[in-house]
Amino acid sequence: MTDPTARSALQSGAGVLELLRLFRDDQAAADAYAAACLEKTKAVEPMLKAFEYLPPDVARRPGPLSGIPVAIKDIIATSDMPTTNGSPVYRDHVPAADAWVVERLRNLGATIFGKTVSTEFAWRHPGPTVNPWNNKHTPGGSSSGSAASVAAGIVPLALGTQTLGSVIRPAAFNGVVGFKPSFGAIPRTGVHPLSPSLDHVGFFARRVDDVAFALSLLSGTSDRDPHGRPVPGFAVDIGHGVLPLDKPCLAIVRFAKWSKAEPEQQKVFDATVATLRRSGAVLDEFELAEIDHGNWSAINTILAAEGAAIFADLVARYPDRTSDHLKSLVQTGKAHPATDYLSAKALQEKWRNAFTTDISGYDAVFTLPAFGEAPLGLHYTGDAEYCAPWTLLGAPALSLPAGFGKNGLPLGIQIVGPYRQDLRTLRVAKWIEGVLKFDPGIANI
Amino acid sequence: MTDPTARSALQSGAGVLELLRLFRDDQAAADAYAAACLEKTKAVEPMLKAFEYLPPDVARRPGPLSGIPVAIKDIIATSDMPTTNGSPVYRDHVPAADAWVVERLRNLGATIFGKTVSTEFAWRHPGPTVNPWNNKHTPGGSSSGSAASVAAGIVPLALGTQTLGSVIRPAAFNGVVGFKPSFGAIPRTGVHPLSPSLDHVGFFARRVDDVAFALSLLSGTSDRDPHGRPVPGFAVDIGHGVLPLDKPCLAIVRFAKWSKAEPEQQKVFDATVATLRRSGAVLDEFELAEIDHGNWSAINTILAAEGAAIFADLVARYPDRTSDHLKSLVQTGKAHPATDYLSAKALQEKWRNAFTTDISGYDAVFTLPAFGEAPLGLHYTGDAEYCAPWTLLGAPALSLPAGFGKNGLPLGIQIVGPYRQDLRTLRVAKWIEGVLKFDPGIANI
Repeated sequence: MTDPTARSALQSGAGVLELLRLFRDDQAAADAYAAACLEKTKAVEPMLKAFEYLPPDVARRPGPLSGIPVAIKDIIATSDMPTTNGSPVYRDHVPAADAWVVERLRNLGATIFGKTVSTEFAWRHPGPTVNPWNNKHTPGGSSSGSAASVAAGIVPLALGTQTLGSVIRPAAFNGVVGFKPSFGAIPRTGVHPLSPSLDHVGFFARRVDDVAFALSLLSGTSDRDPHGRPVPGFAVDIGHGVLPLDKPCLAIVRFAKWSKAEPEQQKVFDATVATLRRSGAVLDEFELAEIDHGNWSAINTILAAEGAAIFADLVARYPDRTSDHLKSLVQTGKAHPATDYLSAKALQEKWRNAFTTDISGYDAVFTLPAFGEAPLGLHYTGDAEYCAPWTLLGAPALSLPAGFGKNGLPLGIQIVGPYRQDLRTLRVAKWIEGVLKFDPGIANI
Repeated sequence: MTDPTARSALQSGAGVLELLRLFRDDQAAADAYAAACLEKTKAVEPMLKAFEYLPPDVARRPGPLSGIPVAIKDIIATSDMPTTNGSPVYRDHVPAADAWVVERLRNLGATIFGKTVSTEFAWRHPGPTVNPWNNKHTPGGSSSGSAASVAAGIVPLALGTQTLGSVIRPAAFNGVVGFKPSFGAIPRTGVHPLSPSLDHVGFFARRVDDVAFALSLLSGTSDRDPHGRPVPGFAVDIGHGVLPLDKPCLAIVRFAKWSKAEPEQQKVFDATVATLRRSGAVLDEFELAEIDHGNWSAINTILAAEGAAIFADLVARYPDRTSDHLKSLVQTGKAHPATDYLSAKALQEKWRNAFTTDISGYDAVFTLPAFGEAPLGLHYTGDAEYCAPWTLLGAPALSLPAGFGKNGLPLGIQIVGPYRQDLRTLRVAKWIEGVLKFDPGIANI
């Protein structure tokens, strides 16, 4: 790489909007940047193991995302690259058509940069990706490769999915911005389902503006996704991003499990609360007792039942190529009566509506994304209990880096808004990002 | 009643658009018409038993439906009238708010004309309503009173609901036009649920134009009905209604059960096919083998599971005020594993998409609405097997009177279009209505 602009952008971990501003007057920099991303990826990939597939070239296409390399979680279909779904059953599978979101990205000019490692079908069985901050630790999952590749400074934007905690938790574990928009905002057509009532498409990036920009371009409807419902339209100006929502009113939700969070995570959280208060935000302690008590059972009932319906035939047909994690999900799901499933679904709908009313006095919820640092080892992608309530509600949720833990791994905080109030949630996050001014930098794997 | 215009309109069974044309220049006729409807209702109601509740007066309100009395099935909430849901559990229940569709009707200027008898919670246990063509026969159900009141010439428009066959079948049994729009076209907020994946709001009227006009005004979305999805917008001109789709291509779908239809129903159906062909329509025999074979099991699995989730607590709490039909539904539903339910839901989605493709060479399906005349007796509302496939698919379906059976009771035909192609389906029906020129007249109870 000889282009100094591209080199500087890559080394500094420039975000999507910064890159677009650079590329506007310097298209050679765009080509050099994409080539540099690919070069760096090839250099770190033997250690990072974030990719299932890398494309032979990264040609630029015209459009509003021209020159932006986007890594795609490998449960999302690509018609020109294999899509393994994280499973040996699909080892060399190349789908006939792009997923809705991939087709949209191509039409927007993005460079589809390759396919990132997912746990098996986005459930628990992990892939080989390591945490770029410490290769003895998990990157989290299921969107393991997408989170790790943004953290390692290889791509400025990556697609993930979240059914329980698969965007927010790896984002926190990797020190990047993770955003799960409202349920249904981005059609899942062509995304391998795990639990259609819970599956969300989401993003990893380095800036709040970047995930806001991505949502503004990718929210839409597909006739093949009956749950699709775009969020109210908004545009993000490339010059200055979204407008921060100054001095927001925030509801601090710690949940009963707070005491189980790591002390360093608690400290970072409380220090962040203090910083925000000093900058003029109003933060009140707030309880969501019924949701706190019931969400874990409800979400797991829905997930197991829907997962069992999806994977029962597959685990029966390929007992040697499916994990015990997946088999156990099917077994659990098959044991649920339909009425238990439907009661959980009714609670989901009830709580989604109730949550909007309950926090109507606040601009957003302020909470944890995880219990602490990424766990040691690659066999376990970490606990999703702090993500589950918001996934169940379909609420927009964003994880923001906020510090480091005792092992030098990143820690985050999570911002959650009411269902379909994605823009306001992003505006709150933008203000917090500006106040904290915390950039963990690129993980130096 | 002294107003001759109103008298003539009532006696001739004028439709909604005809009435609106009359009332445009004669508001006194509108008042006289509504008063005459109420007067006639009071006269026939001791025999017909179509109403749970009649309002004390029928004052006119401004709006595009000004002067049009609309009868409301009594599982649809009204804030100023009791809503019994066809159940003694709700005997004197007055909801806090109107259903979405009732609120919309009021805003459009319609006169909410009272609450019509429904079977218990729109399931099987019948109410007291008789068939106005022969009071020893059922009017069908579950929208019994709505169908019977339009047939008896008491109201020009009535709201019903269909979860299995509760609009199309009673429409056929009563010799009126019944229309079930695409699933989700009209929000069900405030309509007592039976099976949220299958519940549709629909209409009874005397003309195709009238149900088209009703849909054009009542399609919309409600934040409280997650299944809501309005049909592509269209307007119906009061002067000439919808444009007929001339000489349509129709797929004749008889299903394997054809041989079980009554001979008179078969004759009327085949005579109608011949008439349409003579007028230039193209009609081909067509098979939907997979849907034919599987729809009954799938729809009943969904309905029982969702019904059990909704009514399990109620039947446990009120064993003396709930029917054996409802208890049996709960018992059946509780026995279904969640995976069976979800497999049925997956088939529903698969078949909905497949149906659109399968019949893409045709403008609509042409089939039966029922096996024949309304059965003798009031204990059984008739077989819904000819309605079930289209309810499961969420396809727009319309029943049109086409003849009489050997007992002098009406017989119909059914027109079905692909999901969300409601306007085209209505245009096909309008052409068929014009070719058949069959008006059974008002049932002279």
